Amino acid sequence: MREYILTISCPDAVGIVAAVTTFLAVSDCNIKDSAQFGDPATRLFFMRTHFSAGDNAPDLETLRASFCATAKRYHMNWNMVRADERCRMLIMVSKQGHCLNDLLFRHRSGALRADIAGIVSNHETFRDVAEWQGIPFHYLPVTPETKEEKEKELLFMVEKEKIDLVVLARYMQILSPELCGALAGRCINIHHSFLPSFKGAQPYRRAHERGVKLIGATAHYVTANLDEGPIIEQEVQRVDHAHTPEDLAAIGRDVESIVLARAVRLHIEHRVLVNGNKTVVLR
Amino acid sequence: MREYILTISCPDAVGIVAAVTTFLAVSDCNIKDSAQFGDPATRLFFMRTHFSAGDNAPDLETLRASFCATAKRYHMNWNMVRADERCRMLIMVSKQGHCLNDLLFRHRSGALRADIAGIVSNHETFRDVAEWQGIPFHYLPVTPETKEEKEKELLFMVEKEKIDLVVLARYMQILSPELCGALAGRCINIHHSFLPSFKGAQPYRRAHERGVKLIGATAHYVTANLDEGPIIEQEVQRVDHAHTPEDLAAIGRDVESIVLARAVRLHIEHRVLVNGNKTVVLR
Amino acid sequence: MREYILTISCPDAVGIVAAVTTFLAVSDCNIKDSAQFGDPATRLFFMRTHFSAGDNAPDLETLRASFCATAKRYHMNWNMVRADERCRMLIMVSKQGHCLNDLLFRHRSGALRADIAGIVSNHETFRDVAEWQGIPFHYLPVTPETKEEKEKELLFMVEKEKIDLVVLARYMQILSPELCGALAGRCINIHHSFLPSFKGAQPYRRAHERGVKLIGATAHYVTANLDEGPIIEQEVQRVDHAHTPEDLAAIGRDVESIVLARAVRLHIEHRVLVNGNKTVVLR
Amino acid sequence: MREYILTISCPDAVGIVAAVTTFLAVSDCNIKDSAQFGDPATRLFFMRTHFSAGDNAPDLETLRASFCATAKRYHMNWNMVRADERCRMLIMVSKQGHCLNDLLFRHRSGALRADIAGIVSNHETFRDVAEWQGIPFHYLPVTPETKEEKEKELLFMVEKEKIDLVVLARYMQILSPELCGALAGRCINIHHSFLPSFKGAQPYRRAHERGVKLIGATAHYVTANLDEGPIIEQEVQRVDHAHTPEDLAAIGRDVESIVLARAVRLHIEHRVLVNGNKTVVLR
Repeated sequence: MREYILTISCPDAVGIVAAVTTFLAVSDCNIKDSAQFGDPATRLFFMRTHFSAGDNAPDLETLRASFCATAKRYHMNWNMVRADERCRMLIMVSKQGHCLNDLLFRHRSGALRADIAGIVSNHETFRDVAEWQGIPFHYLPVTPETKEEKEKELLFMVEKEKIDLVVLARYMQILSPELCGALAGRCINIHHSFLPSFKGAQPYRRAHERGVKLIGATAHYVTANLDEGPIIEQEVQRVDHAHTPEDLAAIGRDVESIVLARAVRLHIEHRVLVNGNKTVVLR
Repeated sequence: MREYILTISCPDAVGIVAAVTTFLAVSDCNIKDSAQFGDPATRLFFMRTHFSAGDNAPDLETLRASFCATAKRYHMNWNMVRADERCRMLIMVSKQGHCLNDLLFRHRSGALRADIAGIVSNHETFRDVAEWQGIPFHYLPVTPETKEEKEKELLFMVEKEKIDLVVLARYMQILSPELCGALAGRCINIHHSFLPSFKGAQPYRRAHERGVKLIGATAHYVTANLDEGPIIEQEVQRVDHAHTPEDLAAIGRDVESIVLARAVRLHIEHRVLVNGNKTVVLR
Repeated sequence: MREYILTISCPDAVGIVAAVTTFLAVSDCNIKDSAQFGDPATRLFFMRTHFSAGDNAPDLETLRASFCATAKRYHMNWNMVRADERCRMLIMVSKQGHCLNDLLFRHRSGALRADIAGIVSNHETFRDVAEWQGIPFHYLPVTPETKEEKEKELLFMVEKEKIDLVVLARYMQILSPELCGALAGRCINIHHSFLPSFKGAQPYRRAHERGVKLIGATAHYVTANLDEGPIIEQEVQRVDHAHTPEDLAAIGRDVESIVLARAVRLHIEHRVLVNGNKTVVLR
Repeated sequence: MREYILTISCPDAVGIVAAVTTFLAVSDCNIKDSAQFGDPATRLFFMRTHFSAGDNAPDLETLRASFCATAKRYHMNWNMVRADERCRMLIMVSKQGHCLNDLLFRHRSGALRADIAGIVSNHETFRDVAEWQGIPFHYLPVTPETKEEKEKELLFMVEKEKIDLVVLARYMQILSPELCGALAGRCINIHHSFLPSFKGAQPYRRAHERGVKLIGATAHYVTANLDEGPIIEQEVQRVDHAHTPEDLAAIGRDVESIVLARAVRLHIEHRVLVNGNKTVVLR
């Protein structure tokens, strides 16, 4: 059975759902699940529909072509893809390997509908892990002098390898605004605090100083404003006065791994639509 | 602006969403939010649509009448109501008042779209609270001998007062199978455990004996099988070895109040559809 | 059985626990539970011991007098009180009554070991609730001109009524630095965000703008720095893109009530010791 | 600096804490942190003290010898070990590798104070993972006929390798009562439900059938009664009607990994004391 996912964002208007679902019905397609959201603040409408094609349904190219009329009428940004299409993913990491390990295991055990096209790092720490799993490892050391050149190299790799998603799995370098721009909407970072608390460096040390009773992690799309991009997922964990900054970091690693994995899965399943500087997550 | 809520459950089939949304579009109605779910196990389909009527939309009676054709075609159980219709609620309580106090405050502060038509109790404990808030209080003591008669009295009250929802807010009497049947789908109970753990009596004492590290509460529709009805909402709270059964009960009271209030709100907003012995909660 | 609670903070040193527990043993007192914490950062030591007095134990005054030698040796800040002593509490509130309602119910049902000596408000909204429960209600409207005078009045009340704890249960006025100083360590505020995120005004509106996926509440001791005092307790609740700022406020009310109630209980039970701008919470 | 951990369980009595802390003080030992609990139900007392030895403190053997007098007086079960002693761990697994992967990463990254002496499995699935990390892999297929023999082999390995802790990281075989007895208090299992709900086989399928709104995992010491041993740690995660049993299993894997890792760490740090069929967890 062929299955597809259609995502839409457009100005809100009367009749969009009817138009889309009628299009699907006349195309012999059956909705498996569908979710939509109209934002009263921005007057934008968001929709994600997972549908299967019946025996008499046209192929994907024809479906796309015939949907154009509806899409144009409602000024839609839209995307229609095969539900089993695998996301091509590039993982970037520095010296902390917990998120990498977690993503690699999910990949290995079939829990992520993604291919990991490569691992990029400014350290050699995880070369052996990558190679053991047969994943290309790219050592890309960054200095102030080489940053521009290395980022070009990275972007070239993204193009050449047709990367759909770059995951910053505790990659401790700040990307240039140009690179952020080039990767807009397809680069997810995990920040080790409950944003907007403790943006920037050393969040666990600062959480310890402030004496908070919960610590957290935030997965967000990367933008040129550090730690200010659209938030995809957050989670927290209880801590207390007896925890040192090192304890917080250790507890936090579990939260970071979970939050990043959830955000990556949501993105891969086309459940995250960007709404200005926020996300609409259609489960 | 007139607003309505349409809820549907029916056998799954191709084109239901299209049929419903097209009906709304041609009736000059605009979808505000909509959620649906097709259960692959039971092959049943569930939908809840909140829509507003445009200037040229017919009135509710006409909308209902004209929807019948679509409803019949898909063998729907359905309901179409005004979104601002207030639920008429009857609260039953014994001697523990935390859930009652919580519901009364929400009612008083406008957080629940409901009218509390009365409070029924087998004790006089909360008469003064009820009377202070101008809510009729019914003292309905139950003994094995009077149970049948008292339940008839209760059911009579439910009919006469056109009660939409009976809330057992820590009402410590077991309803007869007959009464459960008469109130099917419109009677919510709060059980003070994380079901299916600790069904029946004294769940906190038994949770203490078992040494669990989390305690919980469960709001469910009442059925003739004790604590076995469709679960609407559950929540837990962390506890530890130092907590006595009394501590567990005290901690649990907060969880119970929250869980019951959430379940009542979900029911009032027509978000809970029964699916065999389970619920579909369309947020 | 007489029971007492001893709380201690002092510079860390070898032998403190031995000295305290030996003092208790030789005084025919039996430890019921005890917790301690040595902060490696500040080199301060904190201890809370709940003990019962045997038949041959001296009375509280004598215990206090004889403990002085030990206390002096270790430069202790300390406090020894009857475990069943009731805290005299003053609640301040503006127009949002959920925390007040929650505290009043806990008080009424015996869940808080406290007497509510009065309710102070800059509005008349809750006069009838207070009076129904027989609690003195003080209407204390504040304008820029009258603020100094009204705060004096308040402080006079605190002295006269021997208030142990002032609870700002959604009191929407900022206290002057002088008043904060006078109430240091005995005034708890509930802030409707997960601090340090969204300090100051309108946290729910700002949380909505930022698109966070969890909202929270924070109970803290009031200091002259707005929303910067030592944090006692925090909690969060999951939200999503579909929630309006008003939805966040409604969800947040439950979190605020729970967090404030927990902090008040911890304070009443002498479990919260201040450690610079942080708290040590000895459970 | 030499550091030790002392754990005690004994009948409750006046003066135990004083006796222990005085013993430490006179032995030139300084308490770093200490926790105790007196169970009012069983009249048993539990204590865990982490202390450092001063320059004039005797060595561990002497400390142990000299503590005997105190221990005898109070009928203590006790244990005094070096705080940096590494736990020798044996991991047993079948075909689901998420808990194994999680434990191996924690081990590799230094987050667990343990040596993994071997991995035992009734399948060959994880031989390559084990060998890549240089951990001995033991293939131990079990059939009804060979079970007794294979368990003897296992027990022999436990003795020979001086294993402190056997971790059943989703090992899908039931241990015989004899083996359970031999490993009492040093064998931790992860069960993929929130016990006591869904004991036994296929908990996720049964959770799906019951329509629960939260699923969980439980780490417990193994006893001859299946899934009835003392609970060390539990956690839950929210699910909804749209999740299939496979979705529940996928969500559950994250919960299982976290709960098992926490329980293992608590055990390794000597924080878990058995109290009948319950645990006292001294943090």
